[in-house]
Amino acid sequence: MYVYIVPVKSFRCLKTLHFLNVHNEVFYVPQGLVSYSMPAEEIESVSLPVGWKSYISPEGRKYYVNTSTKGTTDVCICVCQLHGAMEMEESFDAEGSFDDVSCLSPQSPGSTSPARRQNKEKEIKETKITINCVTFPVSMSAPEQQLLKPSEWSYCDYFWADKRDPQGATVSGFEVLLQKQLKGKQMQKEMAEFIRERIKIEEEYAKNLSKLSMFPMAAQEEGTLGEAWAQLKKSLADEAEVHLKFSSKLQSEVEKPLLTFRGDNFKKDMKKYDHHIADLRKQLVSRYAAVEKARKALADRQKDLEVKTQQLEIKLSNKTEEDIKKARRKSTQAGDDLMRCVDLYNQGQSKWFEEMVTTSLELERLEVERVETIQQLLRQYTTLRHETDMFNQSTMEPVDQLLQSVDPAKDRELWVKEHKTGDLRPVDMDI
Amino acid sequence: MYVYIVPVKSFRCLKTLHFLNVHNEVFYVPQGLVSYSMPAEEIESVSLPVGWKSYISPEGRKYYVNTSTKGTTDVCICVCQLHGAMEMEESFDAEGSFDDVSCLSPQSPGSTSPARRQNKEKEIKETKITINCVTFPVSMSAPEQQLLKPSEWSYCDYFWADKRDPQGATVSGFEVLLQKQLKGKQMQKEMAEFIRERIKIEEEYAKNLSKLSMFPMAAQEEGTLGEAWAQLKKSLADEAEVHLKFSSKLQSEVEKPLLTFRGDNFKKDMKKYDHHIADLRKQLVSRYAAVEKARKALADRQKDLEVKTQQLEIKLSNKTEEDIKKARRKSTQAGDDLMRCVDLYNQGQSKWFEEMVTTSLELERLEVERVETIQQLLRQYTTLRHETDMFNQSTMEPVDQLLQSVDPAKDRELWVKEHKTGDLRPVDMDI
Repeated sequence: MYVYIVPVKSFRCLKTLHFLNVHNEVFYVPQGLVSYSMPAEEIESVSLPVGWKSYISPEGRKYYVNTSTKGTTDVCICVCQLHGAMEMEESFDAEGSFDDVSCLSPQSPGSTSPARRQNKEKEIKETKITINCVTFPVSMSAPEQQLLKPSEWSYCDYFWADKRDPQGATVSGFEVLLQKQLKGKQMQKEMAEFIRERIKIEEEYAKNLSKLSMFPMAAQEEGTLGEAWAQLKKSLADEAEVHLKFSSKLQSEVEKPLLTFRGDNFKKDMKKYDHHIADLRKQLVSRYAAVEKARKALADRQKDLEVKTQQLEIKLSNKTEEDIKKARRKSTQAGDDLMRCVDLYNQGQSKWFEEMVTTSLELERLEVERVETIQQLLRQYTTLRHETDMFNQSTMEPVDQLLQSVDPAKDRELWVKEHKTGDLRPVDMDI
Repeated sequence: MYVYIVPVKSFRCLKTLHFLNVHNEVFYVPQGLVSYSMPAEEIESVSLPVGWKSYISPEGRKYYVNTSTKGTTDVCICVCQLHGAMEMEESFDAEGSFDDVSCLSPQSPGSTSPARRQNKEKEIKETKITINCVTFPVSMSAPEQQLLKPSEWSYCDYFWADKRDPQGATVSGFEVLLQKQLKGKQMQKEMAEFIRERIKIEEEYAKNLSKLSMFPMAAQEEGTLGEAWAQLKKSLADEAEVHLKFSSKLQSEVEKPLLTFRGDNFKKDMKKYDHHIADLRKQLVSRYAAVEKARKALADRQKDLEVKTQQLEIKLSNKTEEDIKKARRKSTQAGDDLMRCVDLYNQGQSKWFEEMVTTSLELERLEVERVETIQQLLRQYTTLRHETDMFNQSTMEPVDQLLQSVDPAKDRELWVKEHKTGDLRPVDMDI
């Protein structure tokens, strides 16, 4: 396997190559990385980050492309399986930027000697990689990790690595989870606003119906027809009542709970979690620095011992065995220092690991609670709507009854009794 | 019976008297009225006009009072049953205005001579009265009139007499019926206006719901919860549709028919009837005038004959039998003229009578039709309201379904798949 840093101009360039970009566009390459290997199957099992897709080339080889960077100059680390630099060159078409390719492997591009390939295979045994001061396994020979909570798509299983946001800043997986919760609070606020707007509409409607019910149109209609008409007009006031009741319940049973079921403490709690986890990462950074410093110190001490031993052998200097013993002691000490630093680092990482699991599960629980609470409140909304329509229907009952009783004959009797002028009929005049 | 014209100051005055005011406050007294009688039972059967009530005095006598004129100086014709003027005087209390009482009877107030009472009883045989040139029966000895359409409170039975409106103008019974129909047209117009206002309210409501359904609140909610929320927002647009449909049907199935079911021809037809009946009354007025003229001419001729016959007997003049024959001939002629005039008058009255029956029955039919049509249209209104509430309910179904399907675990899976940063867990660093 060869490791290249390639600016990706167009995914069309990458026809026959196998690429893996583990952390979106840029794979942070820490000092000290020599090489790493990852077989194609492992590439599959680590699911591709957002925007990466896998394709089959005409030749039948699988390759992975970052589709979201088409046309940009992002750099990606390409892990080329079994391809030498020459084959890389051949694969790039004229639009490629092969000149920009630099190989991280000890061997420079162009070298394909079997001896080097053999050395490569030795280096392939490298099994871990530290990215942003967090140490992950890489080797296919390492026992495969089981998910902590299989089949649950749990937060504690999928947010270990950092990523880069569109501006290029580093964002921890935990940060992504936190942002999700804060966004959830924003969502409930916006839903409450929506309900508020509905309330306003209902109140306006009720006001209009109420006003209209008092207009004097056809108030002079009398009898059974007049009664039915009066009740019809009144029914608008009844409808207005129904809608006012609806809006009132919307406020108390939907809007208010949406606004208040995560109190102000919620944001404070989120900040607390944020700082706590961030602090643990910062500690990890400083402990990793200590490890690197100790490693360098050890290398220096070992080199010093080697030089001094060689000098003794060729009798280059008048260094005594005393000097060699001293050098050996310092070397041993440096080794102890390194062990201690690595220990502290591992403890720090474990601590962060535990907090990550605990806190991400809490965030997961909060999200389940949020979804269920909102589901509940929205069900309350539909219940109130059902109720309202039923109450509204019932306002028609008295109107229907009175319309049923409309009786032209009765109305005539009532009106004639009130307005008649005389029932004596004229008779012939006598002479 | 005595007939008095009494200014009525206070109904308290009229404790023990029986009054009948046949046409509200003023009973039009035509020339030639001598007296008329009406027994108490007949007073009952002609139902009291508006404002008139009957009371029982402490002595147990029934009396009728115009309660709406308390404190005014309306004049009424009082028919006092079996009370002489002296009893009238006794009955008025200090607040009365008995000085203003004038008796229409040949005997002046204060006179209670039996001889005069006997004359009164002779005059009581008067059986008809002509009011506003229409001749009505008054005597209790006349065969009682049966209603043309008993138990139906038909227009053709109760609008024979004229009345006075509040301004004092004469209004025919037919006019009252006509005004009722014109008012009915006004009623349907006002009802249509009311429906129009409802339509406007519905359109406003629909517009507001439709706008709100497109607001972007919580548009970023994803997964099953996001789907349910999106459907909830969409349901407002569905509700808007329902209300728009309602307003549209209100317009075509209620408002429009209310405006148009009596066409413009209606007012023309009413005018036609009005003029036709009024013309027949006018004709009656001129024919009545002819009768009065002929009656007077006959009286003159008769007087002339009488004088001439007397003169012959006392040999006062040298008039010959020839002159008497001439006078007798003229008298006979005048008698024939009178008969002819009375005949024409009676024909005219019969014609008017027939048209009154026909036309008032047509107006009655139109009123039944109006009431039934309006009943129908208002039932359509309530039907549309019922429909609307049901359609409105159904807009909640898809929302309920999606809320049912809200699944926090599924939403977590979807979100984690999209946003995860890496599932490789950290491992201890090697030395």
